[in-house]
Amino acid sequence: MAKTRIALLENFNRPYKIRALEIPRLGQGEDLVRITAAGLCGSDIHIFEGRDDRVQLPLVPGHQGVGTIQDIPGEHSDYITGEKLRAGDKIVWNRGVSCGECRYCVELKRPNICPERWTYGISKPHSTSPHLNGTLAEHIILHPSTQIINVGEYPFDDAEYVPLTCAGATMANAFRKAARHETGETILIQGTGPLGLVGILFARQTGFSRVIVTGGTAERLAVAKEFGADMVFDRRTTSVAERKELVSEITGGLGVDCGIETSGAVEAFREGLDLLRRGAQYLLPGFGHPGIRFEFDLFNLTAREINIQGVWTNTVDDLVCALETIAPCREKYRRLIAGSETLDGVNKSFEKLKNRKIIQSIIIP
Amino acid sequence: MAKTRIALLENFNRPYKIRALEIPRLGQGEDLVRITAAGLCGSDIHIFEGRDDRVQLPLVPGHQGVGTIQDIPGEHSDYITGEKLRAGDKIVWNRGVSCGECRYCVELKRPNICPERWTYGISKPHSTSPHLNGTLAEHIILHPSTQIINVGEYPFDDAEYVPLTCAGATMANAFRKAARHETGETILIQGTGPLGLVGILFARQTGFSRVIVTGGTAERLAVAKEFGADMVFDRRTTSVAERKELVSEITGGLGVDCGIETSGAVEAFREGLDLLRRGAQYLLPGFGHPGIRFEFDLFNLTAREINIQGVWTNTVDDLVCALETIAPCREKYRRLIAGSETLDGVNKSFEKLKNRKIIQSIIIP
Amino acid sequence: MAKTRIALLENFNRPYKIRALEIPRLGQGEDLVRITAAGLCGSDIHIFEGRDDRVQLPLVPGHQGVGTIQDIPGEHSDYITGEKLRAGDKIVWNRGVSCGECRYCVELKRPNICPERWTYGISKPHSTSPHLNGTLAEHIILHPSTQIINVGEYPFDDAEYVPLTCAGATMANAFRKAARHETGETILIQGTGPLGLVGILFARQTGFSRVIVTGGTAERLAVAKEFGADMVFDRRTTSVAERKELVSEITGGLGVDCGIETSGAVEAFREGLDLLRRGAQYLLPGFGHPGIRFEFDLFNLTAREINIQGVWTNTVDDLVCALETIAPCREKYRRLIAGSETLDGVNKSFEKLKNRKIIQSIIIP
Amino acid sequence: MAKTRIALLENFNRPYKIRALEIPRLGQGEDLVRITAAGLCGSDIHIFEGRDDRVQLPLVPGHQGVGTIQDIPGEHSDYITGEKLRAGDKIVWNRGVSCGECRYCVELKRPNICPERWTYGISKPHSTSPHLNGTLAEHIILHPSTQIINVGEYPFDDAEYVPLTCAGATMANAFRKAARHETGETILIQGTGPLGLVGILFARQTGFSRVIVTGGTAERLAVAKEFGADMVFDRRTTSVAERKELVSEITGGLGVDCGIETSGAVEAFREGLDLLRRGAQYLLPGFGHPGIRFEFDLFNLTAREINIQGVWTNTVDDLVCALETIAPCREKYRRLIAGSETLDGVNKSFEKLKNRKIIQSIIIP
Repeated sequence: MAKTRIALLENFNRPYKIRALEIPRLGQGEDLVRITAAGLCGSDIHIFEGRDDRVQLPLVPGHQGVGTIQDIPGEHSDYITGEKLRAGDKIVWNRGVSCGECRYCVELKRPNICPERWTYGISKPHSTSPHLNGTLAEHIILHPSTQIINVGEYPFDDAEYVPLTCAGATMANAFRKAARHETGETILIQGTGPLGLVGILFARQTGFSRVIVTGGTAERLAVAKEFGADMVFDRRTTSVAERKELVSEITGGLGVDCGIETSGAVEAFREGLDLLRRGAQYLLPGFGHPGIRFEFDLFNLTAREINIQGVWTNTVDDLVCALETIAPCREKYRRLIAGSETLDGVNKSFEKLKNRKIIQSIIIP
Repeated sequence: MAKTRIALLENFNRPYKIRALEIPRLGQGEDLVRITAAGLCGSDIHIFEGRDDRVQLPLVPGHQGVGTIQDIPGEHSDYITGEKLRAGDKIVWNRGVSCGECRYCVELKRPNICPERWTYGISKPHSTSPHLNGTLAEHIILHPSTQIINVGEYPFDDAEYVPLTCAGATMANAFRKAARHETGETILIQGTGPLGLVGILFARQTGFSRVIVTGGTAERLAVAKEFGADMVFDRRTTSVAERKELVSEITGGLGVDCGIETSGAVEAFREGLDLLRRGAQYLLPGFGHPGIRFEFDLFNLTAREINIQGVWTNTVDDLVCALETIAPCREKYRRLIAGSETLDGVNKSFEKLKNRKIIQSIIIP
Repeated sequence: MAKTRIALLENFNRPYKIRALEIPRLGQGEDLVRITAAGLCGSDIHIFEGRDDRVQLPLVPGHQGVGTIQDIPGEHSDYITGEKLRAGDKIVWNRGVSCGECRYCVELKRPNICPERWTYGISKPHSTSPHLNGTLAEHIILHPSTQIINVGEYPFDDAEYVPLTCAGATMANAFRKAARHETGETILIQGTGPLGLVGILFARQTGFSRVIVTGGTAERLAVAKEFGADMVFDRRTTSVAERKELVSEITGGLGVDCGIETSGAVEAFREGLDLLRRGAQYLLPGFGHPGIRFEFDLFNLTAREINIQGVWTNTVDDLVCALETIAPCREKYRRLIAGSETLDGVNKSFEKLKNRKIIQSIIIP
Repeated sequence: MAKTRIALLENFNRPYKIRALEIPRLGQGEDLVRITAAGLCGSDIHIFEGRDDRVQLPLVPGHQGVGTIQDIPGEHSDYITGEKLRAGDKIVWNRGVSCGECRYCVELKRPNICPERWTYGISKPHSTSPHLNGTLAEHIILHPSTQIINVGEYPFDDAEYVPLTCAGATMANAFRKAARHETGETILIQGTGPLGLVGILFARQTGFSRVIVTGGTAERLAVAKEFGADMVFDRRTTSVAERKELVSEITGGLGVDCGIETSGAVEAFREGLDLLRRGAQYLLPGFGHPGIRFEFDLFNLTAREINIQGVWTNTVDDLVCALETIAPCREKYRRLIAGSETLDGVNKSFEKLKNRKIIQSIIIP
């Protein structure tokens, strides 16, 4: 039996442990994948701190990643082309697995909101068969219902797939929900984590004419500028009133056509709502955890015909959309990736992420 | 000079007065219309009680109505066909008049949210030229920018146009914002005033499969049943928990695909939000006045991919949509109209409306 | 082993034979269904006459039908609700079965144009396992990939499902491709077979304001009137020029907003194209067989911004849409069903259909 | 009275003459514009040769252009912002002027197909007041109904606006009619004139993943490559069969998702139709003149669910969309502009255009 190594979260708020174990025998329809790059994002900090109700310990973390098929005893096809997958194919996959049978999955074609959806690296503890349930490991075993994309013809390096399979796909979902914008629309992107920065690229690739970004660190805002933001606001050095005045100026006094909140902060939401023009859309991919509450005057929504749209993770189509949308601007996008660690360096990478030294943690197991 | 008579609100909370005056000379592009039916709705109660900031006294109230062109010195065309209008034509018109030049009016084609929009019977006091600015009068003078529809070929009686020009058109706006629903969707309509009842007809005419209605009086809920509601809930005789259980039952445990709140009550909003399925739409035409506040957990919107959409009055296209949608179900629709008063009976009609004795006040001046 | 009986087309242009045989043992994932109503439509005439390339003899014909699950050894779920199906459930199913793996099936969600799609009663000869491959039989064996709808809660009688599973579902596909029509649109429906007549009901249920129908027999046009056509033209008693003049009159000289050609005749297509307004849509569900050719001046399409849309059979969503759309107007719809035959009367029913004595052949096996 | 100079087509197939005349006094609502750049395109060749039925001589040609407001006695607002225009503003305008009152203009919001639409430089002979009716002149007088865009904040040089106001705006119309393409779609663009080349930029800016271009000269195909085409085919050096094989290869055997025919050649249409996948869209902006005929087998449209969409010129929204879409790729786009002539060099520029020495004729009057 071949061996593999995994990172394991055994106790909340305690370093990940690296463990070796034998690769389990594959069940019917399961595929064995050699992980070639994985990573940690903001959700992993929540998990680490014991603030995600879905998690049971011990856990192999990691919902982002890319790898190479090592063993595929049954038949599994590429989601887009329908062509049979083979050992050796480089693949990414939908990090969420849905039931495939409920009305959300089948008739409504929204498997991302399937009540039975579970996520690699989050929902299944290590104790649950097939045990290799997260990407922070040398190998992962993919469930038969996993939706897989052969990425052999994409231009990305391994590390570059990591944020694409998470923030990239989620932002694709957000932008696919946005109204068509063709005659000079302005978008406000709040937050400069992976969601916000990838959002700038999406805004630029999908036709928004002016991109305004708010964030909290000069370094991140500099990246935002490189990514194509026309105007960036540091929320620590500008006031809400100053920002409102400048937004008003460049939008002819109307406000922005579209807002996307990616920071998860209630203050950002309050400000965003106020910066929208009448009839605008406000997309919310950033409120990933319960407890952020805001009081609306409902007249404010009615009289201004505001549209508020929740955005939850993504479907596999959104993942493909992310690959296709980001490929033409790969040179800029790569700026998200700054160094990597091996599996043994996972705690070091986690610390850097937590202390905002890096935008995206990359692990090459 | 010919004479006319008007109803006049001279003091808040005091009976309307009937006054006679000479019809002013028409300004450039203005049209004189003999009102053949008008009415009062819930917004007029707000106005009467001095709770609408837009109002200055004295006011000729009335934003609903239909009439016959009496004098049309300039050129004015039917909005749909582009054919010239002539004296003698029976017409309705968009109760809101927008600037026709701003980005909302021109590029975005949403004149209903134009910041310069004003409304007959609400925004212009009697003192403002041309003085005949509301429908509760024998005559109204239409501003040159008013959008007019020749209704000569529609089957409706005069009184039937009255709620169509207000609740009908607003609900058309709401239903045109609804996602297409073709494979068995369920809609929840909250409230049994003109908006809610007309909404039932729209739901039936536009393909919703199941219509659930909540209201507070047995008489109104009986009308809801006649109009095509599959299930009605009296909020005084059923509990929130009971309603949730029944809605869950008929939606396979998922919740409704679409909700429309027409009552303007925060309790209705709270309940409606809870009865939606994931990915559902919640349309809000009912919050017509500031001050109804609700606290959201924003995660509830994100994780369920809820869409909340404000709905504000209507465009003239919506008014046409209302005429076209309601015409085939006119026989049911007429049930909204129960009796009428002359102009001299306006206070009597207002009392009945306020005491919920009638659904819609009709004045035949 | 239980027995069943089938109708069998053994030679083209020769009567169907009734044969008895043992019900084959079910393969993995197959379901056995007792047919409670089936039928023949225009496509079956083509097949009978040997003009459908897809057919190999001998064939159990019948692609329309409804039945009761008799044996369901594996797991199969209702397409809409995801609930498990059980013996005794009354069901309909998508008459086409697609591969479920190609780009049409998976990413594009258009399984109706999957190149591997095959159809019950057409594509698989009797010799192909599981042998019970058409609905003109006491039993059919459903392939594991068949999409099934539990119709237990619909109001229809057995015979009424027959045209719904064919013409109904195809017209749902057509109308779901139609642009939204909300402000008084006119539709032209050409042909008064099951497609055309069901189309009138769809037009009425989905908001078209005026429905114009052309056909060739007074009886059928009388049914068209009953179904809600505002204007019917007998193509044998009116000229093309007369029809054009009348259409011009009721459309203000513009032409119709939408056309649907269901007759498959090139003369109808030529006339329809000429009756469209600029910017109109022309939906083509009726050209089901090769060889109907028409010469366009391409400038006519460009300068008038005409949109021509092919419509091919249906997806299972379309079938559900048909059930939902027709249910509210079932009383009218039933007019399509005039008598039925037993399985032994299949040749009698076929003759009536061929001679246009009936609109829809119904067999109760 | 100030003087101006115009180019004048006095006889078909004879050189344009340069004439001087006094600038007429402006009528009510008219604006006087100093042309800063104009040009000739393929339609002007048609006109020159007497093959455009709309033309009466003598004609001031030129429907493309940009200029500076010299005199604006009345009020005229920018189409997008609604702000008042002033003398000195740099502007472009919709080359077509519609009636503003018919159903196409008002309710359908498709003024480009208004039957009363007329075009600068084409529809009004020089003899018709206000005489300055084309852009090949030092001045043009804009009709009060002209839709104007203030381009003061766009980055383009004068010459660059010329093809934007014609081919750019038309392609915006085409691409706004295209279905959303987000998950890796392939587009075929046929033709390498201004329409086709600008189309490549649109394809790249609006999310198509693969762009295939067919053309007839190596120089133009080299520009196509620079503009972002992934694959170019010279129709003189490759066969239809070779092209089909290569397209099949890069589309997994399916064909392209979208085709745009810009060459106006029937052979291109025949080939394009054959290269589409099932369910694809075929956009037709290129058939600008009557007489190109093609015979369809209508089954080919039905069974493959092909969508064919005519595309006629553009609305002013499309013009704005062109400005916004091309601005971010201005550096590539400029490659279209190669040299210019003064008004006196108009015949020289025309010759170069006719002999395909230049892609776009530019005149700086």
